[in-house]
Amino acid sequence: MNSQELINALADKARLAGKTLSVSSGVERKAALEVIADAIEARSAEIVAANEKDMEAGRASGLNSSLLDRLLLTPERIKGIAGGARQVSQLPDPLGITLRKSTLPNGLELEQITVPFGVIGMVYEARPNVTVDAAVILLMSGNAALLRGSSSAAHSNEVLVRIMREALSGTKISPDVIQLVPSDDRETVKALLHARGKVDLVIPRGSAALIRMVVDDSTVPTIETGAGVCHVYIDEFADLAKAVPIIINSKVQRPSVCNSAETVLIHSKIAESFAPIALKALQDAGVIMHVDSTIEKIAKNAGIEVKPAHVENWSTEYGDLEINVAVVNSVDEANEHIAKYGTQHTEAIVTENKEVAKRFIALSDCAAVMVNTSTRFTDGEQMGFGAEIGISNQKLHARGPMGLEAMTTTTWIVTGNGQIRS
Amino acid sequence: MNSQELINALADKARLAGKTLSVSSGVERKAALEVIADAIEARSAEIVAANEKDMEAGRASGLNSSLLDRLLLTPERIKGIAGGARQVSQLPDPLGITLRKSTLPNGLELEQITVPFGVIGMVYEARPNVTVDAAVILLMSGNAALLRGSSSAAHSNEVLVRIMREALSGTKISPDVIQLVPSDDRETVKALLHARGKVDLVIPRGSAALIRMVVDDSTVPTIETGAGVCHVYIDEFADLAKAVPIIINSKVQRPSVCNSAETVLIHSKIAESFAPIALKALQDAGVIMHVDSTIEKIAKNAGIEVKPAHVENWSTEYGDLEINVAVVNSVDEANEHIAKYGTQHTEAIVTENKEVAKRFIALSDCAAVMVNTSTRFTDGEQMGFGAEIGISNQKLHARGPMGLEAMTTTTWIVTGNGQIRS
Repeated sequence: MNSQELINALADKARLAGKTLSVSSGVERKAALEVIADAIEARSAEIVAANEKDMEAGRASGLNSSLLDRLLLTPERIKGIAGGARQVSQLPDPLGITLRKSTLPNGLELEQITVPFGVIGMVYEARPNVTVDAAVILLMSGNAALLRGSSSAAHSNEVLVRIMREALSGTKISPDVIQLVPSDDRETVKALLHARGKVDLVIPRGSAALIRMVVDDSTVPTIETGAGVCHVYIDEFADLAKAVPIIINSKVQRPSVCNSAETVLIHSKIAESFAPIALKALQDAGVIMHVDSTIEKIAKNAGIEVKPAHVENWSTEYGDLEINVAVVNSVDEANEHIAKYGTQHTEAIVTENKEVAKRFIALSDCAAVMVNTSTRFTDGEQMGFGAEIGISNQKLHARGPMGLEAMTTTTWIVTGNGQIRS
Repeated sequence: MNSQELINALADKARLAGKTLSVSSGVERKAALEVIADAIEARSAEIVAANEKDMEAGRASGLNSSLLDRLLLTPERIKGIAGGARQVSQLPDPLGITLRKSTLPNGLELEQITVPFGVIGMVYEARPNVTVDAAVILLMSGNAALLRGSSSAAHSNEVLVRIMREALSGTKISPDVIQLVPSDDRETVKALLHARGKVDLVIPRGSAALIRMVVDDSTVPTIETGAGVCHVYIDEFADLAKAVPIIINSKVQRPSVCNSAETVLIHSKIAESFAPIALKALQDAGVIMHVDSTIEKIAKNAGIEVKPAHVENWSTEYGDLEINVAVVNSVDEANEHIAKYGTQHTEAIVTENKEVAKRFIALSDCAAVMVNTSTRFTDGEQMGFGAEIGISNQKLHARGPMGLEAMTTTTWIVTGNGQIRS
């Protein structure tokens, strides 16, 4: 059996098993998540033992400490994973929700309701917690899951999937709704991306290279998650007392994630007065600054160390304590800069002028616009979704943080009494 | 300039011009559609003259009469096109609609609103009316349009786009929001499909081959429109007086379109009594029947002419007065047949039993389920959308008939008072 046949067979099995989800109630799916959570917690030692094998192999192959940390499962982290599953089980059932309803002049009753996609493939990297996080979100939204994790987490993923499947065997949901795709072969990713008609959706989570590969190669519909080159624009009408904490929080609070800021744009009218304060705060927070020529002069006068920005800086996602600072002459110029270098993720404006905020919003083209608050709030949990399968960086289907709802599609139910079309 | 550079330049121009749409009000877009409608009607003779050139070339190249008919523009048809634009102008503004709104515990105000995609590419075949239909739907939903029609309609499309652009020059909307992509070169389609980051969405409308090509080749997100192998299942609890008209209407009323039925499935308990009536009605309507062995016996006894179905019949979209008829033993078996051979478009059940209807709906995996009504009702106008840019045959983003709303995406607006994340 080649990789494509293998994936097709797994997808067929998953789709058939998925019928047990299509006809299940929210209460049954919730119960399934609870037994999964219990089983994961109860079998913690088994998971830690399997994870230790991955950790050993990782150390032997010279993985860096940050990657090793992402790979590590401790009893405490396992408890957290189980807690996450319980949290998802508490969320409102996303299926069977009526989105639109009407009665047509000919008496036909029209109803658009939410339904599962069917079979969803996840392609992700080292973190084994994604195996459970994704499976429970997909299961709760009625979807069968094909999970393709990293080979570096193979032992961990294998035991986590086994535990979840064994837990399901005592429920009304078929264990086959969770399928682990072998990770010992790169071809299985390719096959997953070409299983059109067998797999309804593929979601990549991980590096820009992984996401680009999925988007370029896939004939199965995909949702791009990913890169964030986010901006904070400090308008001439900004309350400067708010501006500094927002800049610092947007950059420093967790620089490694996609919703952290990479560039600060300052209106020219307040550059002389405000920039020195902002630059000083960034310097104190240990942030390296790449700046345009106007800011460079201001920094020099203020005795603050900066680097002249090169053109590639403006589109760099640092993921670290580095930031760009530039001056713009208007909200329109800020938006032009953002359109040129941004990734349509999150853009913030600090202003007390509602008209300016309105124009910034209208000219923005991104998943989230922050008005007088930190870019770091583009986050499923912060936004109250309860769970997040990723942050969509595309416009089709879902934009921004994706919760249970984003994992559903719709069906029209048209109920008649023998009506025909004339 | 090669094709990719050309498309990128057109898309850049369209995106910049699209900012006049982003900041426009619904009233301004509505007014723009009205001047377009007026101009098209006023310049009817010019359009007919250009169309005559396409018709001549079409006749010379031996286009068949059905294709020539699709290409033809008459003063009456032009009036109809203008009327369509006016109809779209009357629809509620799809932009700036609040989909979700909440206040978080930290005081942040969250609002999810509808916004345009930005730049949308349409790839379509001979019918020049699509040039205007698509442009006005995209414009009303705030999107700039890259229109790639067929070379066989080049003169018609050229004059229609010129008229629309000239009409816009007197409005607040930049004429550059409508761009005609040259159709004299196949490479421009390819370039459009690879203009990732420049074009936000591509929608193909036309043959299965065109749609398949777009879906396979595109790195730009696409919405698949298309094929319909639709089924009508006559349940054991059917009201047979409703069943016959529904079968006939689903097949005969307009056999060439995607929402017409290709297969009738009859529950075995009523096959002996009902099948002869249904077969007779189909025969009287001039429909050729491909049937399974049970139906073949019934037909023989009733003296009705049928053909034994081959396996490929079950998945054929006839687009003509041909249909398949088979017997199934249960609603589950009906759904298995549909899952195997259907295209997830529209499936109908005729039953008076609500539990059976509910199970049929739960097991279905399609854009629309018809209960006791004709498959022909999966249609934007019939469903009251007022306009339709196509019928989505995919699960991502939009499913079924797509109106103005389907041409929007969303943005989160998060308004704070200096909140930062801790």
